[in-house]
Amino acid sequence: MSEFTPTPRSRVRHLPRRARYDKATIYAILDAGLVAHVGFVDDSGGPVVIPVLYARRGDELIVHGARGGRLQQHLAAGHEVSVSVALVDGLVLAKSAFNQSVNYRSVVLFGRGRALTSPEEKLDALRVLTEHILPGQWAYVRPPTPKELNATGVVAITILEAAAKMRQGPPGDAEQDQDLPLWAGVLPTALAFGAPQPAAHARGPLPPHVQAFLARQPRLAAPRPHASDEEAAP
Amino acid sequence: MSEFTPTPRSRVRHLPRRARYDKATIYAILDAGLVAHVGFVDDSGGPVVIPVLYARRGDELIVHGARGGRLQQHLAAGHEVSVSVALVDGLVLAKSAFNQSVNYRSVVLFGRGRALTSPEEKLDALRVLTEHILPGQWAYVRPPTPKELNATGVVAITILEAAAKMRQGPPGDAEQDQDLPLWAGVLPTALAFGAPQPAAHARGPLPPHVQAFLARQPRLAAPRPHASDEEAAP
Repeated sequence: MSEFTPTPRSRVRHLPRRARYDKATIYAILDAGLVAHVGFVDDSGGPVVIPVLYARRGDELIVHGARGGRLQQHLAAGHEVSVSVALVDGLVLAKSAFNQSVNYRSVVLFGRGRALTSPEEKLDALRVLTEHILPGQWAYVRPPTPKELNATGVVAITILEAAAKMRQGPPGDAEQDQDLPLWAGVLPTALAFGAPQPAAHARGPLPPHVQAFLARQPRLAAPRPHASDEEAAP
Repeated sequence: MSEFTPTPRSRVRHLPRRARYDKATIYAILDAGLVAHVGFVDDSGGPVVIPVLYARRGDELIVHGARGGRLQQHLAAGHEVSVSVALVDGLVLAKSAFNQSVNYRSVVLFGRGRALTSPEEKLDALRVLTEHILPGQWAYVRPPTPKELNATGVVAITILEAAAKMRQGPPGDAEQDQDLPLWAGVLPTALAFGAPQPAAHARGPLPPHVQAFLARQPRLAAPRPHASDEEAAP
């Protein structure tokens, strides 16, 4: 199956032209994200949303946390969850208030958790999670001890339904606003990386896998000493 | 009231030293964010989480969308929602897999929506929302027509309970890992802005309020023409 079949809960109703249901699109967004917001219904019947680190493995999301934590327990019990991931790609400045927008890529999915219990399963899932955040880091660091592994709850959320929604491109001003004497356009954004900050107990240089990772990421410009001068510039 | 009183649903149980319940901290995080993930319980009793743009106004969050949209209807009906906002400040690279982490600032809150119905209420809320995203933009652009205002659903979510959770600083390696011959530290991250991309129908230069806004934001470094050379550098 390369496409999710939308149901009433996962079908995008508002601006359906921005919706996608194919796995290639949905999984590319999930693979580009770092934080997911997991929503569940608590014992009292109310909604709870919690931000977590995650990684995708096939048709599952891997989520870890303290064993016995509320979200871990809920997921381990196999209850349903909804998960939202959103990446902001730019502010879209139109000539009318109505057409202000944001460029983004987002996924809303529905799934069901299961606890990973054997040390082998947990190790593999933690490897996927660590490698998603920084490729090469799992092999570089000291692996978990049995005690650490035991303290860590790891769940896999099977993705049952999912929809992506996205917007890209310039502002969509109405015909009658096109010639207003105003600037319009996009302020592109990205999660960018600054200069690495070694810890006091760091030994040796920045390892090659971290250098290679940073070379692939958007980077932060060095802070400008006289930002106020630049602000006044034309 | 300058502090929220945690209840069982809003009290941070895991790593409680990272939790804050004071409004100053919680509201500063909400004011720094752009996208909130709103969770609710749908008619079938299942969880749904949807990403939205938002702004804080006093003890409320303002959220807009197509009138008649699912989230707008749910919020307008006064049902309870949970809202999650998370800002990633850096990857925390420890010497053990167990201590890998992320620096972040997050808020999980619980609230109840109400529809804003009069044109005056809606206009004021949309002004707050637009100004949160880009200060100065509301006065710069063409205001909404009565027809546009009528098509826009605007709700205010009263914040009833909230908790912030955050992590800052270097990796927390255990005593016995301190001297492992490995690099450890933080890769700082921020949502950064690239060079403005004028639309084909832009008229005139980048206006002063956009220049001033960009001068206050983290900026993207210019893309490097030979990233692969740099990757190979020491």
